[in-house]
Amino acid sequence: MGALHEGHLSLIRHAAKENDKVFVTIYVNPTQFGVHEDLDSYPKTLEKDMGMLQKLDGELKDAGTSGGPIEAVFAPTTKTMYPTLPPDSSLPGTGSFVTITPLAGLLEGKSRPVFFRGVATVCMKLFNIVQPERVYFGQKDVQQTVIIKRMIRDFHLNTDVRIVPTEREKDGLAMSSRNVYLGERRRRVGIVLRQALRAAEAAYKMGKRSRDDILALAWDVANRMSMEQDEMSAEAGARFEVDYISLADPDTLEEVAVIDSEHGAVLSGAIKMLPLDAVRDGEVHGVGGDKVPVRLIDNIILERSDD
Amino acid sequence: MGALHEGHLSLIRHAAKENDKVFVTIYVNPTQFGVHEDLDSYPKTLEKDMGMLQKLDGELKDAGTSGGPIEAVFAPTTKTMYPTLPPDSSLPGTGSFVTITPLAGLLEGKSRPVFFRGVATVCMKLFNIVQPERVYFGQKDVQQTVIIKRMIRDFHLNTDVRIVPTEREKDGLAMSSRNVYLGERRRRVGIVLRQALRAAEAAYKMGKRSRDDILALAWDVANRMSMEQDEMSAEAGARFEVDYISLADPDTLEEVAVIDSEHGAVLSGAIKMLPLDAVRDGEVHGVGGDKVPVRLIDNIILERSDD
Repeated sequence: MGALHEGHLSLIRHAAKENDKVFVTIYVNPTQFGVHEDLDSYPKTLEKDMGMLQKLDGELKDAGTSGGPIEAVFAPTTKTMYPTLPPDSSLPGTGSFVTITPLAGLLEGKSRPVFFRGVATVCMKLFNIVQPERVYFGQKDVQQTVIIKRMIRDFHLNTDVRIVPTEREKDGLAMSSRNVYLGERRRRVGIVLRQALRAAEAAYKMGKRSRDDILALAWDVANRMSMEQDEMSAEAGARFEVDYISLADPDTLEEVAVIDSEHGAVLSGAIKMLPLDAVRDGEVHGVGGDKVPVRLIDNIILERSDD
Repeated sequence: MGALHEGHLSLIRHAAKENDKVFVTIYVNPTQFGVHEDLDSYPKTLEKDMGMLQKLDGELKDAGTSGGPIEAVFAPTTKTMYPTLPPDSSLPGTGSFVTITPLAGLLEGKSRPVFFRGVATVCMKLFNIVQPERVYFGQKDVQQTVIIKRMIRDFHLNTDVRIVPTEREKDGLAMSSRNVYLGERRRRVGIVLRQALRAAEAAYKMGKRSRDDILALAWDVANRMSMEQDEMSAEAGARFEVDYISLADPDTLEEVAVIDSEHGAVLSGAIKMLPLDAVRDGEVHGVGGDKVPVRLIDNIILERSDD
């Protein structure tokens, strides 16, 4: 989707290590935005992106590793990707789509009902155009990785999925193209999601296996931060809402009551950073003056263990 | 879908002329049958089919043409075709599907809402498994050909679609695996659909271009036959219902009011042969004793003309 950051570059670096030729696709896919979502305001920075890719390509060449540099960047028009009917983001939607249910309706899909239909559809097209031996997706969008794996299996697509670890800022915030909307105040509070998930992970690592024991710790962190912000003045606080904190099966993404150690689980969450109630002089603001609500997601894989 | 007849063999013969290797798939795909449709009773004759294919393979080898014989028959299990979730024929349906709208909801799709979702889904899987340079479909299922062409274009599948003319019985009835359900009496009346479409085609060939002028002739034929049958005794008549007679755009399948000569049109129809009201001694019956309602479809392409 462009608006490249270190997370995207990490995908390319991983691909370059394992393949002779790397293809990069940049396409802000309209069908994965709901009709009331932020397609129009989504950052589109193709020129800057191309600069970053050229620089990375140079680095990869200089490194002289066995892996290939960037063979091509595919940045198609919408008429190429949707050649017959204009892209439709409505439900039920006219056009040619891939639907993956019930996976696409869970977690992120609850608040974004057309999102994964758009993702699966555009990925099917891209896979057919490029015919890659391996495709690289970031761990940050864990539901996307599960859905793409399911699509590849169900449709017998001849490609391997590689999941690349989430790139993070120094304080642990997952990198995202939408982070540019966060000014310093919302940026500082936005780390709460990571902190909540880490608290739950710690419980798992200490041997807890029941949903309640594990998620209680995450909710403690989130609720405490939420109360702190609510108690602050409009000029000091940054309010947010928790959309979900989930403990789910890694293949079906269905919520689990008790983690099967041999199977592991996916701990994930989404919060919405609300627009600031009031701004202060001298404060560093995000794109849009911190008036844009920003959804942040993150996750931790609770690996299977032999205990 | 198996239950092979001359129509299927014609597809293979055409494929053998144009390709070194021919792959045949036989799979009665559950997701294209509605929950109340005839999946259980649909003829499944794999052993007989394999015999016919072996015979044809021998003929192709003997002919010694440049084209290849049958390389392989792919007759997968449902667990292979639907590896994660069991096939679901309900609406909205759980699973991984390809949907092609609005095409899939027109004509046949009106009475069979999940049909083309199932067809597109299974074809996407088969195309990915076999990765054919060319795929062969029969003209008889004209809506299927339009939908497959749309799917290939929209998803950038790397395969060419070849449409093979409909194979017909001597009197013109389109061959279909479901024809075995027609005993002599329903068989004789079933030809009405072909006759109706031919009457309309004649009008087009004589220069008529308006929908009303063209379709009136088809409805005349159908209505006359329908009245004749209704007036006969239960032991003599074979009643039927017209589902639709359509004059549609070749690419969108939307109904047209006036045919654009440079674009042509698709004339198509569907009738339902009702179970016989009463049977006579000595009469030859179809499979199921002529108690199974049988849907018949047929079509004629009104080619573009330079007039």
